Amino acid sequence: MAGVDGGILIPAETLRGWTRRVFERLGVGEEDAALVADSLIEANLRGVDTHGITRVLGAYVRRLQGGAVNPRTAFTILRESASTALIDARNSLGQVTANHAMRLAISKAHTTGVAFVATAHANHYGAAAYWAMMALPEGMIGFSATNALPTVAPAGGLTPMLGTNPFAVAIPAGHEQPMVLDLATTVVARGRIVLHAKQNKPLQPGWAYDAAGRPTLDPQAALQGLLAPIGGYKGYGISLAVDMLCGVLTGSSFGTRFPSARGDNVRDPRDVGSLFAAINVASFMDLPEFQARMDAAIREIKACEKAEGVTRIYIPGEIEFETKAKRLAEGIPIPEVVVEEFQALGRELALPFPVAWT
Amino acid sequence: MAGVDGGILIPAETLRGWTRRVFERLGVGEEDAALVADSLIEANLRGVDTHGITRVLGAYVRRLQGGAVNPRTAFTILRESASTALIDARNSLGQVTANHAMRLAISKAHTTGVAFVATAHANHYGAAAYWAMMALPEGMIGFSATNALPTVAPAGGLTPMLGTNPFAVAIPAGHEQPMVLDLATTVVARGRIVLHAKQNKPLQPGWAYDAAGRPTLDPQAALQGLLAPIGGYKGYGISLAVDMLCGVLTGSSFGTRFPSARGDNVRDPRDVGSLFAAINVASFMDLPEFQARMDAAIREIKACEKAEGVTRIYIPGEIEFETKAKRLAEGIPIPEVVVEEFQALGRELALPFPVAWT
Repeated sequence: MAGVDGGILIPAETLRGWTRRVFERLGVGEEDAALVADSLIEANLRGVDTHGITRVLGAYVRRLQGGAVNPRTAFTILRESASTALIDARNSLGQVTANHAMRLAISKAHTTGVAFVATAHANHYGAAAYWAMMALPEGMIGFSATNALPTVAPAGGLTPMLGTNPFAVAIPAGHEQPMVLDLATTVVARGRIVLHAKQNKPLQPGWAYDAAGRPTLDPQAALQGLLAPIGGYKGYGISLAVDMLCGVLTGSSFGTRFPSARGDNVRDPRDVGSLFAAINVASFMDLPEFQARMDAAIREIKACEKAEGVTRIYIPGEIEFETKAKRLAEGIPIPEVVVEEFQALGRELALPFPVAWT
Repeated sequence: MAGVDGGILIPAETLRGWTRRVFERLGVGEEDAALVADSLIEANLRGVDTHGITRVLGAYVRRLQGGAVNPRTAFTILRESASTALIDARNSLGQVTANHAMRLAISKAHTTGVAFVATAHANHYGAAAYWAMMALPEGMIGFSATNALPTVAPAGGLTPMLGTNPFAVAIPAGHEQPMVLDLATTVVARGRIVLHAKQNKPLQPGWAYDAAGRPTLDPQAALQGLLAPIGGYKGYGISLAVDMLCGVLTGSSFGTRFPSARGDNVRDPRDVGSLFAAINVASFMDLPEFQARMDAAIREIKACEKAEGVTRIYIPGEIEFETKAKRLAEGIPIPEVVVEEFQALGRELALPFPVAWT
């Protein structure tokens, strides 16, 4: 376990097993604990550490302990039609309802060609790509989006009124890796700022503003301030549309109306809404033909003439597939400060973190 | 008709009538000519002059005259399921198939809650918002996207391989105006560059690159070069996803594979693909409740504390609604150079442009 980027490389299976038991210890059912652990470890494997245990495990634990999240699932379907459903998550773990919602969307899309399923009164569901990618083995295109606690101001505004409101699209290919786009509507995700704050690293210019709306490189000031949206008013518009679809349409919170207005609140429900969609490729084109066309599109893009200093053109998701292969082989790098955090958590729950700190 | 921005104010109805007759003179049926004229004049009314007659009428005329576009509709449905359809536009005018596709999506969404309809082998359909907004009076959320001729390089690349690939989302409100987001995945649309080139106005920094990939303020150099995507690799990813959904999935052209690789080609079909979706609000929430929640969301955003020098917070589409009211009252400003172009076109078609140049 060599040190890497100031951390230790730990096998994914070691982390997965411990994470699953942490959730079980907090009252989450066996199957659900395995699902939540898989969604978080998968994010770490893909290099999306902002959505892996690295960043969010502590918050998940505190919110389960504080009563903000219901460890046992009790969701109900509020409305349903041939191609849609609205699920009341009833404050379940975000991953548990997301999994159910995406499976329902896929099942409906098998029948009607396309389906949209939304969850209301839900929690953080991890990385959006995890849910969109569930469509891939079904020969479908997957989509997911969620709203989130306000950290972004409308164009021209000074107050955080919108979340980073990420969305993901996953499109299957043939011999090539699928196209997996997963992006926050801000230049960087809030988790990136949190990670920089934890590691005491300055931000890059253009990422965030402080509480007075001034550009800042200080992660602590940015956490009290605003994230910058992509393309100015365009990113603001996308974020607002996601909030209206995920929050307003589902009956969940939107804008500034979240019961737990701050991320460190461990008692009040998050009350986010999320969307899940599946498009059955075969409703438009035979899957093998589509896969061949996707392979061609991907290869043509990658063969693009490169700008000076550029050695490769990447397809969205490609870096994550390569990172996953590498981390499956070498282990997931966990920063030292996070290892210490996990060791403390392990002592608290009588589930020793299975890596000795040397 | 006072001069404005170097142009003349002309009543919308005058422009609409003349535009309709131009299309009829070129062999387009009466109903279709009225639809195309309405889509272009509506863009001008909303202040989106890049998608109005100001910019595109000449190109539409030349492509009909050159045989690149079929003036008579002959589209067929290739595949259909309860919530999807794929329409072969057979090179009809983009607006004619877009109108049919969006109506079909709305009709299906009434039954199944949501629908996705795609068109293949189609042409430029004007502003994406026009089609998304058709959902609004039906109590639905509308969506549309299209691919386009390559003008954008992948992140790290030097060659245009993707279009601006715009998309639009329209969400109904109650007393407030609907939220209408319509954006190209580039910092500006190609039409904005064309308009600057026509008016010999320099570009703003960050809009475009020349053919060598260097930033440029010269609109002519930019037309030979590259548009800059929003948020760097994020805008590239969105543009690629739109191309895969609109081009690859529909069997239309994608990437660099367009038969008319340049916008000034008037003989070869454009062969773009487009997407149209409708989500029935009532499948998730009673419409009056949704409208009230949308009104609240919009009012709360607009009440946001403002940055220094900002007098108003705008909702996407709000400026366009106000511009439309103003232009309906005062007329649509047409730059002098475009008036001259229309006068020449009027002489050519023996349909005098109904505004004397004084």
